[in-house]
Amino acid sequence: MHRTAVKVLEDVLDANGTIARANRDDFDRHGVAVVNLMGSPGAGKTALLEASLRGLEGIRAGVLEGDVQGTLDADRLASLHVPVTQINTDPSFGGECHLDANMVRSAIPSLPLAEIDLLVIENVGNLVCPAEFVVGEDARVMVSSVTEGEDKPVKYPLMFRTVDLVLVSKIDLLPHLDFDLDRYLGNLDSVHPGVERILVSARTGEGIDAWRDWLLRTAAG
Amino acid sequence: MHRTAVKVLEDVLDANGTIARANRDDFDRHGVAVVNLMGSPGAGKTALLEASLRGLEGIRAGVLEGDVQGTLDADRLASLHVPVTQINTDPSFGGECHLDANMVRSAIPSLPLAEIDLLVIENVGNLVCPAEFVVGEDARVMVSSVTEGEDKPVKYPLMFRTVDLVLVSKIDLLPHLDFDLDRYLGNLDSVHPGVERILVSARTGEGIDAWRDWLLRTAAG
Repeated sequence: MHRTAVKVLEDVLDANGTIARANRDDFDRHGVAVVNLMGSPGAGKTALLEASLRGLEGIRAGVLEGDVQGTLDADRLASLHVPVTQINTDPSFGGECHLDANMVRSAIPSLPLAEIDLLVIENVGNLVCPAEFVVGEDARVMVSSVTEGEDKPVKYPLMFRTVDLVLVSKIDLLPHLDFDLDRYLGNLDSVHPGVERILVSARTGEGIDAWRDWLLRTAAG
Repeated sequence: MHRTAVKVLEDVLDANGTIARANRDDFDRHGVAVVNLMGSPGAGKTALLEASLRGLEGIRAGVLEGDVQGTLDADRLASLHVPVTQINTDPSFGGECHLDANMVRSAIPSLPLAEIDLLVIENVGNLVCPAEFVVGEDARVMVSSVTEGEDKPVKYPLMFRTVDLVLVSKIDLLPHLDFDLDRYLGNLDSVHPGVERILVSARTGEGIDAWRDWLLRTAAG
């Protein structure tokens, strides 16, 4: 049997899509809206969850934490008194650099789906592979820190192209960086024209209300 | 034939090791020292090359640029008048999030090995998979930006554990961050005790001489 590398990849993604739909059905049955939160290591994913989940009035949120190893982020979020479930992609998944639908599926029995309205899945820090794997989410969000430079949308176009919202993070640092925001936004629009974006800083609170509103709208479906 | 996922991964890594040794032989035959430079997207890998390759007295350097897509970094480095060769991991390699030994092997015919003493391979921006794949290098270096937070060594231990040098980058931003350098260095030593580290800023030039000296020593073998 002859197969090219690309064909094998497509098959892997097909299987992933099938499992993602099964996840989607389970989430729908419980009326849970699911957000897949992605971004580089250290982009500020956990900090933005800490800043926003606290004040989500009328919505019961839960978090599924994906990390290669350890429970540092889950420990940080547990102090918010939201249910947090941890997936470690190492070693049982071979140290994978992303979550896929099957890893999320394996966590479903541990998720309190009957007690939450919104599940945020914090993916492994990585701008490449998480973009390729749907997990059964309603919306895909990425955190893109201004400290990473203006060129990231053009260097990692698949990630920027497949998300519904870009949180442009750490904007409190703009005065201290050689970062041209207009050029960055131009790059963003060149790979994903008009994609929704919110400028945020977990440190100063700027943009956090808008991000929280977006989560509430998503949870309301 | 029954194989577990872990076994398959080991086989992939075994094949990778075999090809890496072939690369190593080719580099040795030409007397070229090879550095595998890794780090998150936007950690400052290209900026640190721009800052250091300019003044490498007596050493002829070349760069092999690994990116998912595009030639942005190669274009930046070409202005330094060092030979730059580009590998794109997409689409022919399925949009891979790292370089492996075979991708580097495919680039060897394009590398001016007879005309250089030092080859820096700038890997794809990622803290997970590049750590798993040797490519035939003499030394492994990672760039770890202080903007990414103190917890990164413990969250991505394999990367921090398998490198010979950690360039702690963007230290000009320390006054503007909630970043405890001692805590970060403690985390670093907890996963890789005593690993060599240089604090650097491509912007202010701090630490660049030390990084250049390290490259010269490595090139001298």
